[in-house]
Amino acid sequence: MKSKSTLTNPQSFDNLGNNTFLDKNENPFPLPPSPMEEIRDLLPQILLNRYPESSYRKLRECLSSVTGFPPENIIVGNGGDEILWLLYASYVKAGDKVLTMDPSFSEYSHLSRVYNAEQRTVPIVLNDGTFSLDEEDFIDSLSASSPSLVLIDSPNNPTGISLSSGFLDQVTHLSPGITVIDEAYGEFASQDYLKTIRNTTIPHRTVILKTLSKAWGLAGVRLGYAICSDDVAYKINEIRCPYNVNVLSQEVARIMLSYSEWMESRVSTIRYIRDKFITAVNRISKWRAFPSNSNFVLLQTGINRDLIRQSMENQGIHIKYVDMPTYPGTWLRISVGKEEDMSLILEVLVRLSDFVNKNDHTLENDLDIA
Amino acid sequence: MKSKSTLTNPQSFDNLGNNTFLDKNENPFPLPPSPMEEIRDLLPQILLNRYPESSYRKLRECLSSVTGFPPENIIVGNGGDEILWLLYASYVKAGDKVLTMDPSFSEYSHLSRVYNAEQRTVPIVLNDGTFSLDEEDFIDSLSASSPSLVLIDSPNNPTGISLSSGFLDQVTHLSPGITVIDEAYGEFASQDYLKTIRNTTIPHRTVILKTLSKAWGLAGVRLGYAICSDDVAYKINEIRCPYNVNVLSQEVARIMLSYSEWMESRVSTIRYIRDKFITAVNRISKWRAFPSNSNFVLLQTGINRDLIRQSMENQGIHIKYVDMPTYPGTWLRISVGKEEDMSLILEVLVRLSDFVNKNDHTLENDLDIA
Repeated sequence: MKSKSTLTNPQSFDNLGNNTFLDKNENPFPLPPSPMEEIRDLLPQILLNRYPESSYRKLRECLSSVTGFPPENIIVGNGGDEILWLLYASYVKAGDKVLTMDPSFSEYSHLSRVYNAEQRTVPIVLNDGTFSLDEEDFIDSLSASSPSLVLIDSPNNPTGISLSSGFLDQVTHLSPGITVIDEAYGEFASQDYLKTIRNTTIPHRTVILKTLSKAWGLAGVRLGYAICSDDVAYKINEIRCPYNVNVLSQEVARIMLSYSEWMESRVSTIRYIRDKFITAVNRISKWRAFPSNSNFVLLQTGINRDLIRQSMENQGIHIKYVDMPTYPGTWLRISVGKEEDMSLILEVLVRLSDFVNKNDHTLENDLDIA
Repeated sequence: MKSKSTLTNPQSFDNLGNNTFLDKNENPFPLPPSPMEEIRDLLPQILLNRYPESSYRKLRECLSSVTGFPPENIIVGNGGDEILWLLYASYVKAGDKVLTMDPSFSEYSHLSRVYNAEQRTVPIVLNDGTFSLDEEDFIDSLSASSPSLVLIDSPNNPTGISLSSGFLDQVTHLSPGITVIDEAYGEFASQDYLKTIRNTTIPHRTVILKTLSKAWGLAGVRLGYAICSDDVAYKINEIRCPYNVNVLSQEVARIMLSYSEWMESRVSTIRYIRDKFITAVNRISKWRAFPSNSNFVLLQTGINRDLIRQSMENQGIHIKYVDMPTYPGTWLRISVGKEEDMSLILEVLVRLSDFVNKNDHTLENDLDIA
């Protein structure tokens, strides 16, 4: 018998049962039938016994059409993760400094450890119910630490805040090294940097990191890309493995990129479900949900983590528990799923709230944030 | 109009025309219809919008059945290339020494440059028409240089020689760091290290690197794996991206691994074609082909490289030109293709031979090796 707590991913099971996966910020909507048929029809023509065409010309041309940037400034990788690896391998030597926000995507600190870099962070702070970055503080740290690499995820994971284009422009111009603006979740935001700079030249030493894992619904395919200034595109192409993206993922990506209307309609739906969910959570006693520009929502509560975990597991719901050591309470990051997924989780939140209102000894540190 | 010299890969063309690709040591045989149908049928069940199951349990279990090693000692990667990257990232610091043979797979020296390692090499020497490694010399270099990483490709690319299991055992035991035995082409050899150690414990700090790109005919899918001692498996799993192998490649690999009879029959065919080709080349004046344990053959000739290149290009044949600065003449590495591919290339070799026999001023340095 499988233990519930080891159920971390739908691809690991022959039978999904009633599990609801809201822990990895995936797109909850499977691909529509039409591209799936195109993929099936194309399959016999793909030469699996031959290496991929190593410049990814056709795929980069599709990405160029979608983004509006020239193919020469586009690199592709085995997920955005691989592009981050290549950036560290290219630009970070042992002992170098890397500047990020705190909190941010966990892969940054992982890679800083792998490459023996010294990671400096500027906190995202919570004031009057809103998260924000002290931009001046960040700019000061940029001058003070002179990092080889600056990594800014916007929207930020897990707070869901976006940084302004004005601030990001400032960072790209003041950064002494490489600036990576990670817009993995950019499509879900009300504005994004990539669109802002669309008809301008990409600032020198700058990378805008993108993925097909989120808005495009292709997490399983592992296809990341980046819009880079010439210098970075040259360097990454020089060091990457020649065949870092397999032929199947390339073809699936090319097909899906012609379904941008599907992507946009799904993104609208996710934003609608997200905002409705946030409003609903904030009506439940003991729970607070923060505004989000992404496809996930950060929740704070005074309710004990173990109690929450148990209730979620009983319902087969998988969510992400976030450490926010500066702030009291338990923090959860919940991916925006389908409407029925969010209704289910809201039921659990209400039940937990009712339970602690009757048994307030279960409150963590007697905190009642709502 | 496309220039012939830019035609480097079949996946880059909508129409292959009459090109013959013998430059990348690919398996010339496309997958049989039966696994292709299985892949097509499975496609609708693969959740492309969900991340891969990050432990690759099912795939590692298949690889365990095929190789006879426990799943815990198997790691998988985005091609063998990614596993090499992970090994460098885990074990090689700037200034560390890496020991390889010369010549060997070009990715080793590329990665040594990326990771600022100092690469030491022990030459593979040509004596009386046979290539071999001076094993004592290698063992001496091992003690003298104390490398963090030892990389031995067996069969070696491009000479085609295999190292004996006795010697490889000695290296794994004497090496102060990690030993990687790269058996990408092991299935084509008369004996391989992986089979030798099958019922024993994998030596500490040892990796046997394998791929599905060659014998298994899945170069486009990018699926490498490695049989590792516990310490290495632990370390690689700690640092790798959690989703480094996409769901499509995983499923295709799992399906193909159940067709080991197909693989074995294709390997037999390739070995048969290879040995017949070597015999035929050695009957042509001005050409010498060396014995090979792999799916490629190294050729030496006194004929000028540009003349050869022009003749090959005229026939749409793509081969690899190899630098062997210690030895005179022009060196080519020719992948073993289908019988008709080898007949075509033999015709070109004969024609070149006839041509230079009539116009001997085209001989490079008046060398006549045959």
